[in-house]
Amino acid sequence: MLNKKGVLHRNIQMSPPQILALSFLVAIVLGTLLLKLPIATTEPIRWLDALFTATSATTVTGLVVLDTGLDFTVFGQIVIMILIQIGGLGLMTFAVLIVVMLGKRIGLKERILVQEAFNQTSMGGVVRLVKIVFAFAITIELLAIVLLSLRWVPEYGWGFGIYTSVFHTISAFNNAGFSLWSDSLMGYVGDPAVNILITVLFMTGGIGFTVLSDLWRTKTFQQLSLHSKLMIVGTLVINVVAMLFIFVLEYQNPATIGTLNLGEKLWASYFQAVTPRTAGFNSIDIGDLNAGTIVFILLLMFIGAGSASTGSGIKLTTFLIIMMVVLTFLRGRNETVVFNRTIRHQIIIRSLAIVVISLIAVFITILILSITESAPFLMIVFEAFSAFGTVGLSMGLTGDLSDVGKLVIVVLMFIGRIGPLTLAFSLAVAQKSSIRYPDGEVFTG
Amino acid sequence: MLNKKGVLHRNIQMSPPQILALSFLVAIVLGTLLLKLPIATTEPIRWLDALFTATSATTVTGLVVLDTGLDFTVFGQIVIMILIQIGGLGLMTFAVLIVVMLGKRIGLKERILVQEAFNQTSMGGVVRLVKIVFAFAITIELLAIVLLSLRWVPEYGWGFGIYTSVFHTISAFNNAGFSLWSDSLMGYVGDPAVNILITVLFMTGGIGFTVLSDLWRTKTFQQLSLHSKLMIVGTLVINVVAMLFIFVLEYQNPATIGTLNLGEKLWASYFQAVTPRTAGFNSIDIGDLNAGTIVFILLLMFIGAGSASTGSGIKLTTFLIIMMVVLTFLRGRNETVVFNRTIRHQIIIRSLAIVVISLIAVFITILILSITESAPFLMIVFEAFSAFGTVGLSMGLTGDLSDVGKLVIVVLMFIGRIGPLTLAFSLAVAQKSSIRYPDGEVFTG
Ligand SMILES: [K+]
Ligand SMILES: [K+]
Repeated sequence: MLNKKGVLHRNIQMSPPQILALSFLVAIVLGTLLLKLPIATTEPIRWLDALFTATSATTVTGLVVLDTGLDFTVFGQIVIMILIQIGGLGLMTFAVLIVVMLGKRIGLKERILVQEAFNQTSMGGVVRLVKIVFAFAITIELLAIVLLSLRWVPEYGWGFGIYTSVFHTISAFNNAGFSLWSDSLMGYVGDPAVNILITVLFMTGGIGFTVLSDLWRTKTFQQLSLHSKLMIVGTLVINVVAMLFIFVLEYQNPATIGTLNLGEKLWASYFQAVTPRTAGFNSIDIGDLNAGTIVFILLLMFIGAGSASTGSGIKLTTFLIIMMVVLTFLRGRNETVVFNRTIRHQIIIRSLAIVVISLIAVFITILILSITESAPFLMIVFEAFSAFGTVGLSMGLTGDLSDVGKLVIVVLMFIGRIGPLTLAFSLAVAQKSSIRYPDGEVFTG
Repeated sequence: MLNKKGVLHRNIQMSPPQILALSFLVAIVLGTLLLKLPIATTEPIRWLDALFTATSATTVTGLVVLDTGLDFTVFGQIVIMILIQIGGLGLMTFAVLIVVMLGKRIGLKERILVQEAFNQTSMGGVVRLVKIVFAFAITIELLAIVLLSLRWVPEYGWGFGIYTSVFHTISAFNNAGFSLWSDSLMGYVGDPAVNILITVLFMTGGIGFTVLSDLWRTKTFQQLSLHSKLMIVGTLVINVVAMLFIFVLEYQNPATIGTLNLGEKLWASYFQAVTPRTAGFNSIDIGDLNAGTIVFILLLMFIGAGSASTGSGIKLTTFLIIMMVVLTFLRGRNETVVFNRTIRHQIIIRSLAIVVISLIAVFITILILSITESAPFLMIVFEAFSAFGTVGLSMGLTGDLSDVGKLVIVVLMFIGRIGPLTLAFSLAVAQKSSIRYPDGEVFTG
């Protein structure tokens, strides 16, 4: 049906979001088939669990109903790795391309900006751009594999040392949070090398390609685009606040960091502060955190990472824009101005739509799960926010989900990965505006 | 300090929101003092519990740490009644006045509309308007007292029959939800007279004075203002949906409506469907509802009643506008059009601010309570949404709250009653707009 050249050609006109959704569906279906093969697992698994794992990998979530290190063979683990790379790097590349296409549709100024940023002028330019993104990602991943191997080969020998470095590099850069260890990175809670390498990897993947490319090309903070400025300042502030919050709230909790020494306490607070915004690894037991810490992490998971990145969530810029619009309103002003740039009405409405639709998706999931599951409400809420933000942290509910519950989480992971981006780049029509400051483009979602 | 004529005159310039907040604070402080008097209670009570009760009454919430019917004397109950009338009718009147003042500040067309609606032309007009609102409220309350007495005097005799009719009329019309019975209206779960009278009372108080006045003056649906149309259609739809939802989800729950006959089941579903949007009475035990029903009620409590009413919450119109903006965005259109009226950008931003600030207030409350209280998370979340929406439904946590918890709830009830209105009517500056459809005024919050 799809390949009858010409005949059905006109009927197969698809919009970019449709192409994106279809690609993800195909990857998930293929992944499910491969993971259901007898050679993929040590024991036969159910179709539902194969689907769940394939979806979790492709959407770079990391919620698991099986033990990745024990229940899957090396073949199965490689399938998972490939799905992660497709779902993380693939979506990032797609998003970068849409940003460029978007650039073409909104005014001369932005167009020149984008063309300058990517030297993109034609179809050849698109191919070149994809090559740049891929080359950038592969370079970082190779570098990380070498560095992690320096840490893990001495501990595990050449074979597993390199293999586990490859697996965790791909999982970290793509913000997937899958681990070969049943307790994620809890064995390395106070290990500086693992803490630094893994977090730098997922933060690099999560801040967004446009920001990195902007940082690469400019010399001063002033020269950065509004989007890059927002992302850099916002990331710093939110991470510091989160680290302090977790450090203070968990300081005396013997089940998490209470019994660790000060250095380990700080590493653990840092790691748990930066991981909820999509990465999803954990170095302490999430189920043992205080309820207050859990509630705070819900917010971090909802906010998520940067646009055009390997991360998900509503995106940090979306969150910041909404906050600034409200602040502007409270100050009695009409135009939201940040770093001497006005936020266009269209961007505000887009951000609003992303937040509202995301809240609706999470709310409906919580509603359904609270009917189908008999677990404590906090575990249900946490699972829903984690699935929507494709974070993968869990208080331990995932394995105990009912079949309906698993299906609901599968759908939410899919929406969480595709939805905000689709919304963010739909309706990118330029609007005439009669305002003093020039408009600033901010990618949200 | 306040009454030194002239000298400090210039320093005591207050904005309407400040006047509003101060009036409420004064009422709460006076109420606390009166309720702490030995003649107000059967046993001595703590200052904190007096403050909690005074705040709950003044903000028409209905959350109780003491048993209104048993722990308070008739004197104490009358104090509570007066605080409820001040907090409900007082705020409604204030909101109506602001709508009129707002009318003066936004263009000739709206001004004429408002003046037509209220025949308000001068300071004398303001006094006349207050008289109209009061006369309207007192008339309805007197009528309800007579009708409820017909039901309760035969059951309880003249004295308590009339007294309880007065108390529940004031509590219902002002959407306070205080009851003289420890189990609220659970003794009347299948009683048509009580069900109809109480719900009609709180829906009349909760739909907003502007809507009622609009209904009074116009003959056809077409002639109604955009705001009235939205409120009427929205109220009908949300109530029917809520009733169906609760009926289906609780049908087999033996702890709520499972053991009732069909008629009682329907009355109970109806009552619990309409009460969460500020009223706060209950005819079945809220703590026994299914988790799914509870989650759905959270949404209803957050949405709340109508603007310029005795109810609270973000307001039904705010909710509807946000939904329509998102729908418009998804359809790829720029202007949000309802009933052939465009929703102005300013109204959208105002609605956004109300929702975001409300979510922040509820989120911070949940965060603090999950640190200070050891109760199940669902009970904490429910308590927070109930306090913000000044609903007063509870799964049973209120009496067990820690002192810090009680103070946090006191603050949230205050914010929930004052905040959205203050936001809604701040920044009512007219904006030039170049759109095809004429703008439609919608009161949000
Ligand atoms: K993840
Ligand atoms: K109430």
